Amino acid sequence: MSDRPDTPLLDRVHSPADLKVLSDRELEQVADELRAETISAVSQTGGHLGAGLGVVELTVAIHAVFDTPRDRLIWDVSHQCYPHKILTGRRDRIRTLRQKDGLSGFTKRSESPYDPFGAAHSSTSISAALGFAVARDLGGAPEPALGDAIAVIGDGAMSAGMAYEALNNAGHLHKRLIVILNDNEMSIAQPVGAMSSYLSRLYAGAPFQELKAAAKGAVSLLPQPLQHGARRAKDMLKHMAVGGTLFEELGFSYVGPIDGHDMEQLLAVLRTVKARADGPILIHAITKKGKGYRPAELADDKGHATAKFDMVTGEQKKAPSNAPSYTKVFAQALIEEAARDDKIVAVTAAMPDGTGLNLFAERFPARCFDVGIAEQHGVTFCAGMAAGGMKPFCAMYSTFLQRGYDQVVHDVAIQRLPVRFAIDRAGLVGADGATHAGSFDVAFLANLPGFVVMAAADEAELKHMVATAVAHDDGPIAFRFPRGEGAGVELPERGRALEIGKGRIIAEGSRIALLSFGTRLQEVQAAAESLAARGITPTVADARFAKPLDREMILTLAKEHEALITIEEGAIGGFGSHVAQLLAEEGVFDTGLKYRSMVLPDNFIDQASPADMYAVAKLNAADIEAKVLAVLGVVQLVERRVR
Amino acid sequence: MSDRPDTPLLDRVHSPADLKVLSDRELEQVADELRAETISAVSQTGGHLGAGLGVVELTVAIHAVFDTPRDRLIWDVSHQCYPHKILTGRRDRIRTLRQKDGLSGFTKRSESPYDPFGAAHSSTSISAALGFAVARDLGGAPEPALGDAIAVIGDGAMSAGMAYEALNNAGHLHKRLIVILNDNEMSIAQPVGAMSSYLSRLYAGAPFQELKAAAKGAVSLLPQPLQHGARRAKDMLKHMAVGGTLFEELGFSYVGPIDGHDMEQLLAVLRTVKARADGPILIHAITKKGKGYRPAELADDKGHATAKFDMVTGEQKKAPSNAPSYTKVFAQALIEEAARDDKIVAVTAAMPDGTGLNLFAERFPARCFDVGIAEQHGVTFCAGMAAGGMKPFCAMYSTFLQRGYDQVVHDVAIQRLPVRFAIDRAGLVGADGATHAGSFDVAFLANLPGFVVMAAADEAELKHMVATAVAHDDGPIAFRFPRGEGAGVELPERGRALEIGKGRIIAEGSRIALLSFGTRLQEVQAAAESLAARGITPTVADARFAKPLDREMILTLAKEHEALITIEEGAIGGFGSHVAQLLAEEGVFDTGLKYRSMVLPDNFIDQASPADMYAVAKLNAADIEAKVLAVLGVVQLVERRVR
Repeated sequence: MSDRPDTPLLDRVHSPADLKVLSDRELEQVADELRAETISAVSQTGGHLGAGLGVVELTVAIHAVFDTPRDRLIWDVSHQCYPHKILTGRRDRIRTLRQKDGLSGFTKRSESPYDPFGAAHSSTSISAALGFAVARDLGGAPEPALGDAIAVIGDGAMSAGMAYEALNNAGHLHKRLIVILNDNEMSIAQPVGAMSSYLSRLYAGAPFQELKAAAKGAVSLLPQPLQHGARRAKDMLKHMAVGGTLFEELGFSYVGPIDGHDMEQLLAVLRTVKARADGPILIHAITKKGKGYRPAELADDKGHATAKFDMVTGEQKKAPSNAPSYTKVFAQALIEEAARDDKIVAVTAAMPDGTGLNLFAERFPARCFDVGIAEQHGVTFCAGMAAGGMKPFCAMYSTFLQRGYDQVVHDVAIQRLPVRFAIDRAGLVGADGATHAGSFDVAFLANLPGFVVMAAADEAELKHMVATAVAHDDGPIAFRFPRGEGAGVELPERGRALEIGKGRIIAEGSRIALLSFGTRLQEVQAAAESLAARGITPTVADARFAKPLDREMILTLAKEHEALITIEEGAIGGFGSHVAQLLAEEGVFDTGLKYRSMVLPDNFIDQASPADMYAVAKLNAADIEAKVLAVLGVVQLVERRVR
Repeated sequence: MSDRPDTPLLDRVHSPADLKVLSDRELEQVADELRAETISAVSQTGGHLGAGLGVVELTVAIHAVFDTPRDRLIWDVSHQCYPHKILTGRRDRIRTLRQKDGLSGFTKRSESPYDPFGAAHSSTSISAALGFAVARDLGGAPEPALGDAIAVIGDGAMSAGMAYEALNNAGHLHKRLIVILNDNEMSIAQPVGAMSSYLSRLYAGAPFQELKAAAKGAVSLLPQPLQHGARRAKDMLKHMAVGGTLFEELGFSYVGPIDGHDMEQLLAVLRTVKARADGPILIHAITKKGKGYRPAELADDKGHATAKFDMVTGEQKKAPSNAPSYTKVFAQALIEEAARDDKIVAVTAAMPDGTGLNLFAERFPARCFDVGIAEQHGVTFCAGMAAGGMKPFCAMYSTFLQRGYDQVVHDVAIQRLPVRFAIDRAGLVGADGATHAGSFDVAFLANLPGFVVMAAADEAELKHMVATAVAHDDGPIAFRFPRGEGAGVELPERGRALEIGKGRIIAEGSRIALLSFGTRLQEVQAAAESLAARGITPTVADARFAKPLDREMILTLAKEHEALITIEEGAIGGFGSHVAQLLAEEGVFDTGLKYRSMVLPDNFIDQASPADMYAVAKLNAADIEAKVLAVLGVVQLVERRVR
């Protein structure tokens, strides 16, 4: 316990109710202790640090002023929720963050009544809060009864269209609703988009000291019902900031900017808003990501996401890696291709580091576009560039590509435009849990006419698939690859374009064929080795393509084996479903084939290590081996009437 | 030909190049003739009338000033593209609009080089135009070479988050890009959202005559490079409109508002913009939907979509319907349920008429929410209301639900919130063609853990499914139904909640079982009747649920028949794939089952009547019959090695 900070006041806070009896001065101290506890906890668990440190004072102030969980507090994305979890009865488990059977790294309804609406993807909070506000006014009756609805959203999240849609609708409905814009002047990476620049101008329009002084007096300036009061306060601040705000145009009352690390300001403004709000109000709080922990403040990403670290030095304790990550292999391969082909451009939606495009941007700054948290726009922007003769690579996580699905269908697939989708984080992803799992992309892409859908079995395959995507100019093409390290195979000097719709036989065997799509191939090979010891030698094949299928290879495998099992790290509806459709149409089932399709199970899997998650999913080598034995040995015969 | 208008000048315009030699006065006349020709054409074909009439002058002005197709002109949604099609070499086919083998009702890349980027869903144009602008500046080299990029977008489309994402990104990139806001003060239905109110205020802030006069002189006020020029012009207009604009905050130069029906203003402003633009510019044009055709101007929907009509009276020639539409049955059923249950609320995304929620709103105005073209927000808003104890019905077309897919996964499914999805326009939709087909919903919903997915076989079933959705409070539930008239079956007095995951046997037969999911059931029954004449009596079943499957019924059908065929109006990955997975897991294929899955084919199907589209898709009764005969009679045996 010696590395635990001394937190005498925080130790007395077991729930937000305990904050109500503290003085404003004591709340400041609670915030200091909460910051120390957060740093200490994350140093042991790793996770999202910078965002939480930026909202420590805000977290304390909201829980002190409002009546959670009756008042619904919704953290957008919820990277910043660790201090909130500590204050809301979960301090005893905070050092299990993001671990198997531990606390989620995000807010989660099933975890606590203080998490009324879970999050992990960005920009959902205002929509959800508006839902609560409307439900309250219409007599919705969940437990506990409905009070205020409060969304806390960062400036990065505000760049997503969804947030704008919600502001627009909330301004129109004019329900009492509180949105706190947590403006730390950066989204996950660099500030992008004109929105950031607008917010910066709002802030830069006046010396912070003046704003601070003015905001401190805001309470006494707000004697009217807040609708008017907030406008008056805003008028007071107006000559310091720029005139007019985006939010007022959309129908919100605007309060701010205020210093989000100044407890006195926060308490004063929140108390006034609570007492007087009668419509949608936006409170603009300026915060500093990583605030109060020097290594985070000094880091480029402000301690956004970290491994376990040394609290004194801030040095992260990363396990040495055996192989380059798939992400890095993708980025390097794309850079090599782009050096030879000046039509190649790349698009990321606020994930330059996560997708490896930061490396691409260093080399080709004019050909790399970070569109912000804006997948819908990002996909169609790629479609426009493709129609304009470029070769766009749209690099997104599988789970975030869901945000741009209609654009994939309507702008890319129907128009058969050659957009290249580099789908990272395909399959189960580990500590980020169910919300970040890339489970559905094969199903939702492979049924789109004209799409080519590939999955890399290892990092060498990934390099070939990048080359394949460059070469494929007749319609859209996607390749998926998982989070984490490659298999450690040797990388080819240069990627080569694969023949579209052709798989490969990895090992010839008999009786049973294991047809893998993606990186489960390593597990399939391990299973095959283990089976060999039992005298069973499966044929192992790598499909490479879910679409178009290698019909010839698959029908030959079916013909030459008693059993065929497909294996993929995706939900039903994907690769295995396409194989089953082929086999059915060709009449292969008519005379019997022991066919099985191993897919992700029909439940959302909580965070753990990827290997543990795949164990839950029953997609590891042992599971594949067991399936083979069951199919070959303990066959469940369903009695059927023969004609 | 006597009902054709007299169009002497338009008759000389075979392509936009022919406009270049005309005087401004003659262009006005071309516009008048183009309006008459548009009305005449749509009176014969039906289609989208009001939007086109609102942009007749704009269409002529853009093609006269800019160099299409070198300059890429992108019509958002493209309901308004009929005058554009007439001017760009398609006048001879304009009376085939929306018909089989005729012109598409939307812009379409494969139809004309003057349609550089197709559209049908809303709010994609700015993203696409930005793609062209970036491609141009990076040396993209399509044919013809890239000039200006021009997006024309309505105020309704501007309420979608995607448009905001694109503006935000365009403001940041600062490429030369022209966005024309076609502000007709209404989206498809009523103006909704604070955005409309903001635009109205912009316009209402000054007498139109003054704006008109000022804008007429705008050219002489713009001597600088336009970046500055536009700002100066805007400063000139500022005292007439409200100060500050949303668009300038996002980095656009702003010109307007101007009268979109005044050719002189339009030509002056467009010529100036063409000569001087050096960054993103937004031209705000005020237009009147349905302009110049009195029956349209007087209609509530301004002639948005119309059947064939009498040109003189405006009276629409609708075929008498035999049965109420599915949409209306849904709306009535929901109203009946809502009268008994005050927790029921309904959400539409700018489609109150299309979804039938206009009827619901009349009865329960406080419980109906039109969120605007904002499916992302709409879905999560429903999730928030569900978490707040309400019973939200999210009524969207299948194709538009794609816009909210990530929200369905992340906010609804993962949190297991009881949002009810009423999915209209499931399957093929007729005249709107491929962009509006509801092909993918079963695939992308049924693989989400915890979802219940139903399809109504007829309108009585639909009524039961509404009741089922009301009763189901343990997670999300969806029911799909097609466009058009019901089957004409008797409606029950009151819907009853179906047992979740239970199908029904329609007719007992032998040898082969036909397992239908959705309204293809009528075709299945017709096929069964026809087969009976050949001495084949199939068992016919209605699955009702794609998830959870009726395992017992399906396994029994498999056991008791030689062959089993599933039929659905959806793409691969949906119902049939779930059935195949069940059969595989249960070992049914091990000993042979003639299994087939009839799904939508792997191509996008052009507009025609729904029946014709289903013929192309091979999902009509004759196709089902042929499939049965092939499976039972001409079985393709795949030779396999037996163990």
